[in-house]
Amino acid sequence: MSSTIDFWFEFASTYSFLAAERIDGLARDREVAVRWRPFLLGPVLKAQGWTTSPFLVHEAKGRYMWRDMERWCDRLGLPFRKPDVFPQNGLHAARVALALPEDARPAFVRAVYRSEFCSGLDIANPAVVEDCLRQTGADLDPALTAAQTPLVKDALRRETDTAISLGVFGAPALVTADGELFWGNDRLEEALDWAAGRK
Amino acid sequence: MSSTIDFWFEFASTYSFLAAERIDGLARDREVAVRWRPFLLGPVLKAQGWTTSPFLVHEAKGRYMWRDMERWCDRLGLPFRKPDVFPQNGLHAARVALALPEDARPAFVRAVYRSEFCSGLDIANPAVVEDCLRQTGADLDPALTAAQTPLVKDALRRETDTAISLGVFGAPALVTADGELFWGNDRLEEALDWAAGRK
Repeated sequence: MSSTIDFWFEFASTYSFLAAERIDGLARDREVAVRWRPFLLGPVLKAQGWTTSPFLVHEAKGRYMWRDMERWCDRLGLPFRKPDVFPQNGLHAARVALALPEDARPAFVRAVYRSEFCSGLDIANPAVVEDCLRQTGADLDPALTAAQTPLVKDALRRETDTAISLGVFGAPALVTADGELFWGNDRLEEALDWAAGRK
Repeated sequence: MSSTIDFWFEFASTYSFLAAERIDGLARDREVAVRWRPFLLGPVLKAQGWTTSPFLVHEAKGRYMWRDMERWCDRLGLPFRKPDVFPQNGLHAARVALALPEDARPAFVRAVYRSEFCSGLDIANPAVVEDCLRQTGADLDPALTAAQTPLVKDALRRETDTAISLGVFGAPALVTADGELFWGNDRLEEALDWAAGRK
């Protein structure tokens, strides 16, 4: 791998889900290593004056987003199911993701997103998160125990602060080693091209 | 041309500028006819509770947008210049665009956007709009006179209402004959594929 890119994602974010599904193949093609970095969008949006998802605040935009998700999932061959709860509380899942060894993270993250947006489950439910760990063959107890430690809780807060300091204002976001910020599933290819030196 | 698509744009919108630069070639490849439909984003944003551009309200998002524009223009080979005034008042330019015959519209629209985002001029200045008409060989007097008539003023208001009724919440927006809405310069290819029946 010639270079790395930071992939910032939030579990409540629909477009982070699409990016999580797409990024590995696109990064492999360009020989770019991906660092999967969960963060919390809530504090980021709050810093911009939002109290909830922009998709709830702006009804027409919300309606459009769900239709856009249907079309995207259709093209990616993923079953899509709009969850009853939106946006979901991904705090527990984000802590578990951060507690996992880096190489176990991508499979777990995708399992959580699929539970949420393909099966319509509520990822705030610890049983759903446990099931995702089981599906991906991760060691259950160490991850679940670590996720509740002050160390991991603080680390997630610090990651969120780092994201804000990098200019991240939404999810997903990609940041290259030379500090270029790209926002959204729509910018995956461009961000990875940049990271690979194909500007 | 086997099908048509409606291209809704607003002169203040940076991403509408990019779409205006790109749409003709992409549409030709797919044998889709484009109807260029100016509208006013102000009333659309107001209906969603915004009083000015989201890029001014959300600072980090604004900073990102300008950097994103630089990168896009670089890739498209366009000189980019951030205008001193943003967002600009495109009311007069939109009325003139609507007053022009449909086949004269694309060249004029692109000239206005280039004045704004490549030369950094203020398109609220009638002299800038006149110069754009001149550059594109349009008949000056009929367009400028018609733009001030109640007929054209009302038509622009009605177009804006139509955009809202189609679910448009931002610019640019693409709407296909079967009512699919696509938002943003990022969705041009997908919207045109849809219009061409290549779902």
